Amino acid sequence: MNKILIIGCGLIGSSVLRAVHKKKIAKKIFILEKSKNNISKIKKLNLKCQIIKDFKNEIPKMDMIIFCTHLSNYEEALKKINKFLNKKTIITDVGSTKNLILQKIRKKLKKGVFWTPSHPIAGSEVSGPEFGHSNLFKNKWCVLIKEKNSNKKHLKKLNKFWKKVGCKIVMMNSQQHDHIFAITSHLPHLIAYNIVKTALDFEKKRKSNLIKFSAGGLRDFSRIAASNEIMWRDVFLSNKKNIILAINLFVKNLNAFKRDISIKNSNKIIKKLTLTKKVRKKIIQLKQDVNLPDFGRN
Amino acid sequence: MNKILIIGCGLIGSSVLRAVHKKKIAKKIFILEKSKNNISKIKKLNLKCQIIKDFKNEIPKMDMIIFCTHLSNYEEALKKINKFLNKKTIITDVGSTKNLILQKIRKKLKKGVFWTPSHPIAGSEVSGPEFGHSNLFKNKWCVLIKEKNSNKKHLKKLNKFWKKVGCKIVMMNSQQHDHIFAITSHLPHLIAYNIVKTALDFEKKRKSNLIKFSAGGLRDFSRIAASNEIMWRDVFLSNKKNIILAINLFVKNLNAFKRDISIKNSNKIIKKLTLTKKVRKKIIQLKQDVNLPDFGRN
Repeated sequence: MNKILIIGCGLIGSSVLRAVHKKKIAKKIFILEKSKNNISKIKKLNLKCQIIKDFKNEIPKMDMIIFCTHLSNYEEALKKINKFLNKKTIITDVGSTKNLILQKIRKKLKKGVFWTPSHPIAGSEVSGPEFGHSNLFKNKWCVLIKEKNSNKKHLKKLNKFWKKVGCKIVMMNSQQHDHIFAITSHLPHLIAYNIVKTALDFEKKRKSNLIKFSAGGLRDFSRIAASNEIMWRDVFLSNKKNIILAINLFVKNLNAFKRDISIKNSNKIIKKLTLTKKVRKKIIQLKQDVNLPDFGRN
Repeated sequence: MNKILIIGCGLIGSSVLRAVHKKKIAKKIFILEKSKNNISKIKKLNLKCQIIKDFKNEIPKMDMIIFCTHLSNYEEALKKINKFLNKKTIITDVGSTKNLILQKIRKKLKKGVFWTPSHPIAGSEVSGPEFGHSNLFKNKWCVLIKEKNSNKKHLKKLNKFWKKVGCKIVMMNSQQHDHIFAITSHLPHLIAYNIVKTALDFEKKRKSNLIKFSAGGLRDFSRIAASNEIMWRDVFLSNKKNIILAINLFVKNLNAFKRDISIKNSNKIIKKLTLTKKVRKKIIQLKQDVNLPDFGRN
């Protein structure tokens, strides 16, 4: 490829940038970044890229445009570049929800231009270009959204692109995507936020200083609950329907658990706790985590 | 000290054993272990200790006895040694719940003998003596249970003991302990089990293979949900009242969260997600976790 534009150069955008350079995927990388703070960080970090200024002349020449900004910034960013977009340009994003966004974008997108969503399953609780690295996507899944009206040529090129970046590819439609990630990612984050909020409320109510004893479990949730608030608000709102269904299923199970504890149904509790252990084994078999015990990080 | 007896030599018991040797806290360590599997592991690991056999002659000579077995094994183990117990022997445990157990034990315990509970906040999702190590307790909190009728001399000696093992000491009564750890440890574990159970149910219902996409959050919960099922059943049942209160508070907060998502109350969501970030900062300030981003363990 010749030219790539990355819109939003935080943790993910700057990692794409670094990976593209390292793997020599494109000759020139442009960025569009509205945060002055991020721009000054990018300069300090000496990340090889050019801040796009001449939209009219540069946008039509892009081989690929990747939206790496928050979901709630998509429309504003699209507005800036929309009329200059070229049919040949592969346009994608890395957002964590797909269905609603895709519907919204399709309505706004310049006629004849294709939007082919991606979702590399990589990230961290930290934000900003200073935390990005070229190996962030190595051996991670990247979901490509394939639907009836998808541009097959663009899909094929995206497949190649993400593989070069380091990903394993899986295809699904936007509804499947949002169902699955409501459970494997959105619900866990929401629950982590909720458990930390519950601990805070409890601390207030009891006036007991409990945060200092968080090494027994709370600590791990607090790390997840320290993730970027804009990103996660956007995720929760743009996958509302599936997340509410996931919460309902979760609460139903939690109430059953509570009942088993309440009536001291030892067998049922053991059955539950053994079942979940099997999932862990599967996760390790599927290389989604390492099989090393965790004693807390020192 | 001269002689210590460790009852139950799994992850925690074998770590106490290793730390006692390393810090030269006692001359001789005895173990009482009912699992043949653990005994053969201990022999293979060449852990320096003697399996106690002559209860009548050895038990009265112990300077300290530490119950490191599952809460549900306490009564059975106590029955074996009770009549040989010596008033001077410091008797403690490392169990994760205190109030109910203390009440039960006090009823059974030989007259004049003291039971002074400890709870070092250390562990992992793995079990067994092969995972123990002498530094498991280093810089970790150890709660000592102090109540009106506690033996001050034994408390003082336990304070010294756990400090030598590597712990920082905090004193509280058994009710305070069970309140606090219901929130910081028991609820997080229960929630982790419940989220993995919910993912399993969802996978079954939708027939979608979602476990392989667990790197987006579920993975971290699955590690916690792989903890020992006997230990956690015992914890849930022996701190029933506090855990049910914690679940109720958690569900109340979760329903409020659901409502905010449902009516798209963006401000309230952002407020929640920012608040929990502050807890993370506090946890790091309190040295309960390291300030290093987590990108998944490779």
